[in-house]
Amino acid sequence: MDAHMIDSKIFGHRWSTPESHEIFGETARVARWLEVIVTLAEAQAECGIIPVAAAEDIGALRGAELPLDRIAERTRSTGHSTLGMIQTLRELLPATSSEYVYFGATVQDVSDTAQVLEMKAGGALLWRDLWMLEGALIELARQHRETPMAGRTHGQLGAPISFGFKLASWADEIGRHLERMRGARSRWLVGQLGGAVGALAFFGNRGLDLRAAFCRRLSLREPAISWLSCRDRIAEFAHVAAMAATSLARIANEIYVLQRSEIGELRERSQNATVGSITMPHKRNPERSEQIVTLAQLARAQSNILTDSLVHEHERDGRHWKIEWSVFPTLCHSVLAAAAMSRELVCGLEIDMAAMRRNLSNVPASEHLLSVMSARLGKHRAQMLLQEAYRAGAEEKVSLTSLLQGFATQHELSGLARVDFGSCALMVDRVVEAAGRRRALESECWQ
Amino acid sequence: MDAHMIDSKIFGHRWSTPESHEIFGETARVARWLEVIVTLAEAQAECGIIPVAAAEDIGALRGAELPLDRIAERTRSTGHSTLGMIQTLRELLPATSSEYVYFGATVQDVSDTAQVLEMKAGGALLWRDLWMLEGALIELARQHRETPMAGRTHGQLGAPISFGFKLASWADEIGRHLERMRGARSRWLVGQLGGAVGALAFFGNRGLDLRAAFCRRLSLREPAISWLSCRDRIAEFAHVAAMAATSLARIANEIYVLQRSEIGELRERSQNATVGSITMPHKRNPERSEQIVTLAQLARAQSNILTDSLVHEHERDGRHWKIEWSVFPTLCHSVLAAAAMSRELVCGLEIDMAAMRRNLSNVPASEHLLSVMSARLGKHRAQMLLQEAYRAGAEEKVSLTSLLQGFATQHELSGLARVDFGSCALMVDRVVEAAGRRRALESECWQ
Amino acid sequence: MDAHMIDSKIFGHRWSTPESHEIFGETARVARWLEVIVTLAEAQAECGIIPVAAAEDIGALRGAELPLDRIAERTRSTGHSTLGMIQTLRELLPATSSEYVYFGATVQDVSDTAQVLEMKAGGALLWRDLWMLEGALIELARQHRETPMAGRTHGQLGAPISFGFKLASWADEIGRHLERMRGARSRWLVGQLGGAVGALAFFGNRGLDLRAAFCRRLSLREPAISWLSCRDRIAEFAHVAAMAATSLARIANEIYVLQRSEIGELRERSQNATVGSITMPHKRNPERSEQIVTLAQLARAQSNILTDSLVHEHERDGRHWKIEWSVFPTLCHSVLAAAAMSRELVCGLEIDMAAMRRNLSNVPASEHLLSVMSARLGKHRAQMLLQEAYRAGAEEKVSLTSLLQGFATQHELSGLARVDFGSCALMVDRVVEAAGRRRALESECWQ
Amino acid sequence: MDAHMIDSKIFGHRWSTPESHEIFGETARVARWLEVIVTLAEAQAECGIIPVAAAEDIGALRGAELPLDRIAERTRSTGHSTLGMIQTLRELLPATSSEYVYFGATVQDVSDTAQVLEMKAGGALLWRDLWMLEGALIELARQHRETPMAGRTHGQLGAPISFGFKLASWADEIGRHLERMRGARSRWLVGQLGGAVGALAFFGNRGLDLRAAFCRRLSLREPAISWLSCRDRIAEFAHVAAMAATSLARIANEIYVLQRSEIGELRERSQNATVGSITMPHKRNPERSEQIVTLAQLARAQSNILTDSLVHEHERDGRHWKIEWSVFPTLCHSVLAAAAMSRELVCGLEIDMAAMRRNLSNVPASEHLLSVMSARLGKHRAQMLLQEAYRAGAEEKVSLTSLLQGFATQHELSGLARVDFGSCALMVDRVVEAAGRRRALESECWQ
Repeated sequence: MDAHMIDSKIFGHRWSTPESHEIFGETARVARWLEVIVTLAEAQAECGIIPVAAAEDIGALRGAELPLDRIAERTRSTGHSTLGMIQTLRELLPATSSEYVYFGATVQDVSDTAQVLEMKAGGALLWRDLWMLEGALIELARQHRETPMAGRTHGQLGAPISFGFKLASWADEIGRHLERMRGARSRWLVGQLGGAVGALAFFGNRGLDLRAAFCRRLSLREPAISWLSCRDRIAEFAHVAAMAATSLARIANEIYVLQRSEIGELRERSQNATVGSITMPHKRNPERSEQIVTLAQLARAQSNILTDSLVHEHERDGRHWKIEWSVFPTLCHSVLAAAAMSRELVCGLEIDMAAMRRNLSNVPASEHLLSVMSARLGKHRAQMLLQEAYRAGAEEKVSLTSLLQGFATQHELSGLARVDFGSCALMVDRVVEAAGRRRALESECWQ
Repeated sequence: MDAHMIDSKIFGHRWSTPESHEIFGETARVARWLEVIVTLAEAQAECGIIPVAAAEDIGALRGAELPLDRIAERTRSTGHSTLGMIQTLRELLPATSSEYVYFGATVQDVSDTAQVLEMKAGGALLWRDLWMLEGALIELARQHRETPMAGRTHGQLGAPISFGFKLASWADEIGRHLERMRGARSRWLVGQLGGAVGALAFFGNRGLDLRAAFCRRLSLREPAISWLSCRDRIAEFAHVAAMAATSLARIANEIYVLQRSEIGELRERSQNATVGSITMPHKRNPERSEQIVTLAQLARAQSNILTDSLVHEHERDGRHWKIEWSVFPTLCHSVLAAAAMSRELVCGLEIDMAAMRRNLSNVPASEHLLSVMSARLGKHRAQMLLQEAYRAGAEEKVSLTSLLQGFATQHELSGLARVDFGSCALMVDRVVEAAGRRRALESECWQ
Repeated sequence: MDAHMIDSKIFGHRWSTPESHEIFGETARVARWLEVIVTLAEAQAECGIIPVAAAEDIGALRGAELPLDRIAERTRSTGHSTLGMIQTLRELLPATSSEYVYFGATVQDVSDTAQVLEMKAGGALLWRDLWMLEGALIELARQHRETPMAGRTHGQLGAPISFGFKLASWADEIGRHLERMRGARSRWLVGQLGGAVGALAFFGNRGLDLRAAFCRRLSLREPAISWLSCRDRIAEFAHVAAMAATSLARIANEIYVLQRSEIGELRERSQNATVGSITMPHKRNPERSEQIVTLAQLARAQSNILTDSLVHEHERDGRHWKIEWSVFPTLCHSVLAAAAMSRELVCGLEIDMAAMRRNLSNVPASEHLLSVMSARLGKHRAQMLLQEAYRAGAEEKVSLTSLLQGFATQHELSGLARVDFGSCALMVDRVVEAAGRRRALESECWQ
Repeated sequence: MDAHMIDSKIFGHRWSTPESHEIFGETARVARWLEVIVTLAEAQAECGIIPVAAAEDIGALRGAELPLDRIAERTRSTGHSTLGMIQTLRELLPATSSEYVYFGATVQDVSDTAQVLEMKAGGALLWRDLWMLEGALIELARQHRETPMAGRTHGQLGAPISFGFKLASWADEIGRHLERMRGARSRWLVGQLGGAVGALAFFGNRGLDLRAAFCRRLSLREPAISWLSCRDRIAEFAHVAAMAATSLARIANEIYVLQRSEIGELRERSQNATVGSITMPHKRNPERSEQIVTLAQLARAQSNILTDSLVHEHERDGRHWKIEWSVFPTLCHSVLAAAAMSRELVCGLEIDMAAMRRNLSNVPASEHLLSVMSARLGKHRAQMLLQEAYRAGAEEKVSLTSLLQGFATQHELSGLARVDFGSCALMVDRVVEAAGRRRALESECWQ
């Protein structure tokens, strides 16, 4: 079926990526569940819980393409989330071994562990994209360390900054997301094996050994205690991912704004064949920027649901757990699509330094002037004088320079045209250095 | 692709319905867009904007199955949302007519109008299900008008009610959603035709006539003004639908709770082949109830996004408009799946009146006793006496009757065993009558 | 206490209004609860449930200023939401009457009914402000029916519109909120009297008569059934109010953007003494616009909680009901502050028609040109030619007119400078007429 | 003013704590802003930016009680967030020094830095409460390491667990929040000093030195770059706090459910004077549990807003920044109130082990039986047999033991009555040990 935008043939590429589908497509999900089931059998054989021969038979199914239609049909007829799959697996196994597949496990043992593996795979892609994006931003920040442009506050032209300062502010924020992902990784990547109520009672006194073997074989950490109804790890991952997407949306939105016809300082690269508008052939739209803002909003909505769902009841709570099956993949598709688009966006960014200069020339260097006049008049007095002068000037459409005659000295007024972006370049250096130190110890692989 | 739960072969039936896929599947969407495009051409011919022959050629495409792969490929190569489809349509048309397809229209003319048609189709299903559900609840409320059960507040056994009272409270709430849907229908079902910025400038002085003909042919109302960036109608529909789903979640959650092993007053019907738990074969889980709670949460998350997205900028805002393409169908799938499951749930509800009586027998008729004692002692004094007696009783594990000796008269104490559910039955009557009056003027078709 | 922004002496005026405090301040809440309690006694006397003399004593308390500190202290000592108040009232009453205050009522009878009265009072203010705002917008739309300005899509200059068209689009949206408020009023304004579990058992067979008298005396409608755990009316009111605030945020955000230094088409009126920025004396910030966007976001967050909270359990659910005590007033303060600021904003809007013209002059009339060329070349061919010309022009910095030599005729090119805003003015007329018809039957009083 | 529940004299204690008011009350806010302003002057004197004498005069204001009414009035007349305060401060200073207060600073330099100090103070309280709560839970888990009770899944009685297992699962989750808070502390507690657009241009080449001195004096870390529009630290803190509150809500909700009359395994301690219900004197309501669920929902709503608000525009964005002034304190009040109540709740928890045993006796040991029978029959066959037996038993009201005659051996059936909670006690040990190791290195002070 193809009802959701993520699955749309026509529009899916704007809501997901080929890589996200490789992780979260139905075939991939079934394959991952199979991998977990096979690994469980192998761990059980290792612990003497099932016969080695059975584990070998089950192990032979590893990587098999299972008939989705059949599984689907049986899922419906049994009304049980995994029984359709189990029955299908049993038919593929010799009778003696078929009793040992999914031996003592419960749905969440499989689905939670598989979801953690998805978190690992999806997290690796997110890390890689953020890491490369940070690299690109750092490089751009270095290049534009002293490229002057107007700072803006409250949507108004303010005092000057360097474009590198803006880029470094983005890089710094992305860098913190990398820091979060690295710091929390070992907290997140934890297997689940608990049986019916998390007690591992089916396995007698071999429960904890089995869980250890199971987790080790999947390269996941072992939890201290079953977490069937403790979902904080997922909520935390989701929120970090949603925050990362939203930081990308901050960048994208800034590009959307600075690409405005009246501003024109930045522009998305547009491919030759791309058509902006059918009805207005002159248009060139910031399509990627817009879509990244959209994807981040989707990601946040999923994250909000996952945080709400921490309020699980008892030892398993179907009302708040299965919602993850819908929400978690949607989150990951959205975040990964935003990350992929952001790399394209930043790497293809067209920068119009002339436009930056032109817009900046409309900014009176009022902060600088204030600073200079403060030395002579006191800050608050200087500020009041300037305030009044500007107000009068705005009404009378008279130039500031003429209005300030008498208040400001000639020397002071000469600074009005000066572009002083203060410590911007030095702050760029600090961000570049800090990121450099960090990145020297890391790679594009999430660890 | 099949990555989203809605599109999952294995689990899709829990997150959507066959009917919701008929409306929101990709084939259906393309077909609906085609219908809008064809209708536009016909309306344009009617208004003398394009040749009648061209409209006839375009009209011949009505109902055609378009090649999704080709459209998909071209959507990617042009980077434009509708151009892939337009190019594909043009190839199917004679050269002379091919210039007249999508003549002067913009994406939102097609996608917004199609979305309103989806709202109409999805709304009709929701109305039908709510209408039938209200009917079923009304019938059950009538049957259980005087079936005694414990009322509960703060999760504690409280004073008695009748089961019909609970059912009528559900029916009353559903009834208000029907009222909302009926009242807002004409506000919602409005076509869109505005061209580039909503001004209809492409069509010269025939713009408004064209829009009138276009809307009339689609049985939609004509808006006073283009609404490319006015999305309140969608946000309102979404919220009413999400509220309806959440009312269903209230019912489902109540059933989940009353099906608790320790309470056992209600139970979902379970089909014979259904397996509750693999590891605990004795279990019978309220699967539908849980899923309805889940679906309502999903629906609310979509509705929240749509309300956020009212803050559109200018005459069209890609950041907040295209998110509807993902959110609106997800909302509808979720709500319709919740509605379908709720019908099954309510129609198959197993009611254990003996359990209701048993639980009720543990409720001291304290409200009644208070009422009777108040007449003699004053209300606040009576209440204080009762409060102290209960507190002491709870500590000393002594029966209330013996504790109240001396405070309450024998006659008063005799009422302790009485089941008095006050005006419950009369309120059931009121709900039944009001719904009956309303339903006599309506049908299961949304109008 | 003054911890919340709403209650801040310094900043409270940006998050609430004097009027919203008159409704939602603590003194007002206690007074309203008292009014409900007094009215209940009077209705009980009318129905013969309590002595007339008692009702008269209780009635004498109407409008009394109750000692908040004492109530507060007793609320803490009893741990009960209303008992502190009841004990305080009892002390003010003769012993014989004091047993009849709050006779058979429960917290929600008082707090729900009072909340509906707050909804009525808050809704009346919202209606009035929206009604006046619609009037102001309609008047402005009429004035600027043909004031040309650039339409913008995707943040880019697009085809022309009239400013009146933009204003009418705002008015139209506000008008729908008025329509919603009028349509739902009788559904919302409903009293609550149910006793312990909603069954009215305390009052024997006089329960429904009492409820009728109680509601009548408060000018509220009578519900069919107790709604202690049916909160859809509140969720609906909240959502309509939040939508209204968000429509105001759409207007405010548009002003924020069009006030950008680089655009300069609109500006908030600034008062003489107002200081935009201390560090940049030249700045004039769109403070109100920003704050309205903020307030709408707050309002939506409250509305989301109220919709979530529809999932009440049983006959009363403290987890999801008492949250209304925090959320509902915050919602109303935010919405009313946004409405009051929006009136100031719109009534003091500074409109720079010269800037509108100047920005518009940078828009090639590509939609119009396309329309004209389509007649000769076919639409899709014309569009492709234009697209290529623009792309080439953008690269080579050559004027469009020269690039189109050869493709477009001289006559066609002459239209490039034309400002054609299509049916904008006619759509303004339609909105003005529809609003006029509606407003002739209404007033600034919510009915 | 006292309009918000947080500020209500009567109900404020349920929505905030005395400690939270000490941090977030208006007097405290003004005092904190003053502290920041004074510290800035001292740092400026240290860096040679202002005269030492001026810094001493300004320093003499430290701890002064400022006239809130006057500040409020001037905030209104200037329309500027800090100018009212600055003017008030200037009046308290000698003319020569008054020009040096708030020298070159901007609103966010003060308000952001103050907010970080609030985060530090609020975070310390949250840490302390979570730390003590974890300690209490660990101690309880140890005590109830082998207290048998029913595990429940899907709201149904499932297989046995120990009560300690449930407690350890809570402790483990709280422990992860402590881990998060410790890990992120140095990322969060960072000062802000940037001036107009973050460039520190007012201070010439002494900007970064000044910032370093300013941060050092406030015991905050120095950021690499101004973060006027990088709000991820706040969003992260808010989410961790909201997650912590929601974990407390999970605990509280579990107590709410297990306190149900029909279950009765746990109970909130109730104080003697506490009145549960006026109309139903026998009731004892889980008031604290309910309120904690409510507070967590409020906290999540604030956190959601803060994550949304990451999408700041340019160098400062009033639309998304000032919302923190409302949202951040509300979040902290809610979380701290939830934490304080949770400590009371857990420390006063009444545990009814007899009820636990009684409810457990209704659970057939089906997981254990399945395990034993699996050895003989194969797991899937055994499961099917059991499933059928239970289904038949439920219908025929026949005991399981008699139904299984023939299928299960006598030895197998003898295990039906056995209480086997598997590895629960061992998992308790693991949680206790891990927490013990961690806590040995920590204290109740957040570091």
